[in-house]
Formats: sequence, C-alpha cells, structure tokens
Amino acid sequence: MMKHIDNNGRRSRAVVANGTVYMGGQVADDWTADVATQTRQALARIDAILAEAGSDRSKVVSAQIWLKTMDDYEAMNAVWDAWVDPAGAPARSCGVVEMAHEGLRVEIIPTAIL
Amino acid sequence: MMKHIDNNGRRSRAVVANGTVYMGGQVADDWTADVATQTRQALARIDAILAEAGSDRSKVVSAQIWLKTMDDYEAMNAVWDAWVDPAGAPARSCGVVEMAHEGLRVEIIPTAIL
Amino acid sequence: MMKHIDNNGRRSRAVVANGTVYMGGQVADDWTADVATQTRQALARIDAILAEAGSDRSKVVSAQIWLKTMDDYEAMNAVWDAWVDPAGAPARSCGVVEMAHEGLRVEIIPTAIL
Repeated sequence: MMKHIDNNGRRSRAVVANGTVYMGGQVADDWTADVATQTRQALARIDAILAEAGSDRSKVVSAQIWLKTMDDYEAMNAVWDAWVDPAGAPARSCGVVEMAHEGLRVEIIPTAIL
Repeated sequence: MMKHIDNNGRRSRAVVANGTVYMGGQVADDWTADVATQTRQALARIDAILAEAGSDRSKVVSAQIWLKTMDDYEAMNAVWDAWVDPAGAPARSCGVVEMAHEGLRVEIIPTAIL
Repeated sequence: MMKHIDNNGRRSRAVVANGTVYMGGQVADDWTADVATQTRQALARIDAILAEAGSDRSKVVSAQIWLKTMDDYEAMNAVWDAWVDPAGAPARSCGVVEMAHEGLRVEIIPTAIL
C-alpha cells in the first residue's frame, strides 16, 4: 500500500500511497554548478523518480521551489518552462529558503499522481 | 482525471486530481497594499479558484502561509480568522519566506478537497 | 468526511480527509529548549496527533522541516533518525525559515495516510 523509493533511513526520495507520489526536496548532483544546471539536474532526478513510481511529469500536480536567491528566478524559470508539460503546468509556489548545503541554489518539492 | 485551472504554461493556479485541489501560492493583485489588504485579496482569489474547482473554503484541509516579515503576523491573522470557517479551520503553517516580487507581503498555499 | 483535530478557529492541528492526515506545523511546548529537545517534543506531539487520527509514524508520507538555523541540522537529524520507522522514512525537505515565535528552533509539517 506504501512504496518507498530510495529510502536511506532518514528520508525516502518519494513515497507512493493512495495514488499519490509524495516527493522530498530534490536537488542537483553538482552543488558547484550554476542555477540553470542545478535546475536541470534536479528535474532529471524528478523524472527518474516519477518513472520509478509509475508516473511522469505530466502528472505533477504541485511543486514548491526553493531558491538560494531571487536573482536566480529567471534562470530557474527558463529551465522549468522548457521542462513543464505545457498542456498542464503544476500548481506552483517559489520562495527563497536557505537549504541544507551552502552550494545548493535550488530545491524542488513536487507532488504527483499515478 | 486532472483539471488545470488558469494554466499559463509555467504554473496552474490549481490542479484538481483524485478529489483534491492542489493550489499554487496565491497572492494579492495590488502589491503596494498593506498586509491586511493583500491577505484579503489573496483569500478572495482562493475563494474564486475553489469555486471554479467545485470546492469552497470549508473544505480547505491545509494552508502554508508565507509572510515578508513576522511583524505582519497579527494583521494577517485578523483577516485570516474572519475568513476561516470556524467549524473547521485548516491545518496551518506560517513562516517568513522571501517571495518572487518585492512588494508581496503574503502568499498562501492551500490544499482543499472536493 | 472531514475530521478536524484540535480546531481553535484559526487552525486545526490536523485535518483528516480522503484517507489523508494533513497536519499543520508542529512545534515544541518549551520554546526555550535546545533544538534536540524541541525536536523531541514536536515529534511527540505528532505521534499524539497521528494516534488521534488513527494513523502512526510508519504512515507519514512526507514532512517539511523548518529550522531557525542550519547550525541545528545535525542535532535535529539525530533525534529525527531515532524517531523514523527505518522500514520506510518519509519524503523530506528541510530549510531555514523564520517561524512565528523567536524561541522556536524547529517546526515540522507532516502528511500521513490512514
């Protein structure tokens, strides 16, 4: 009834339950990269998690996006806009939040359906 | 199965799926107004989105509220308290988060059921 | 169809609907305590709310964690790691967000299923 994806004992990258894919905050692999690259890497990770859950980017219902600075807003959006299924973008919120590691410039917390 | 409300290709104001209304961060129309006015305008927008989704304020299950400064906490709460259905207030969290535009004093991210 | 837990007219501690337990931001009782104690107290409160909702910590699907400062990250994690059901940790995000009261060092916003 619950499926945990990539559980390390502290957090799972996603938990699938009740037809919903609850995801944790997804970040880039390279924490020295600029915000465009970090956004691209975080979204690639999200695609992979969604695939493992049996979902895909067209089924993301909401996303909260954290940035290190609002100066990165347009660069993040350019990558985001190219990624989103234009037939139906998620409900979205975006704010500046200090993240767990100083190099991180963006963290994305999506919810999807199956 | 998914209904997107006011999709502009970057974000929808809400996505309805699985009996749930996932909403993005809702803000005021007038970004020069004080926090009470901005809260009132954001909540009016939420009412309109809920109506379009086939829900209403009594069915909001949770809300995350972002403020520009905690100095606005009481003024936001006064408007919020008058808006909420006293028979059943949503689960709520409220913190200071820098938002996408400098004039914004409050952003509200609700989830509702149908 | 909706069950409100500890509704004070402004917020409920949790709302149960559609098989889901939507929780507000949970904090410690003692706002002068260090982050380890505050984390322990917030998690105890979450356990109590989950029990009242008919759920438990193994059914938490996601949690957003707010800290006063990232200097508290490891101390919070030590308490969190001991609390989490290792068979299946929730999807998690953690950032620095200024909370409603100055003494608060941690606030946890979980979602669970029944």
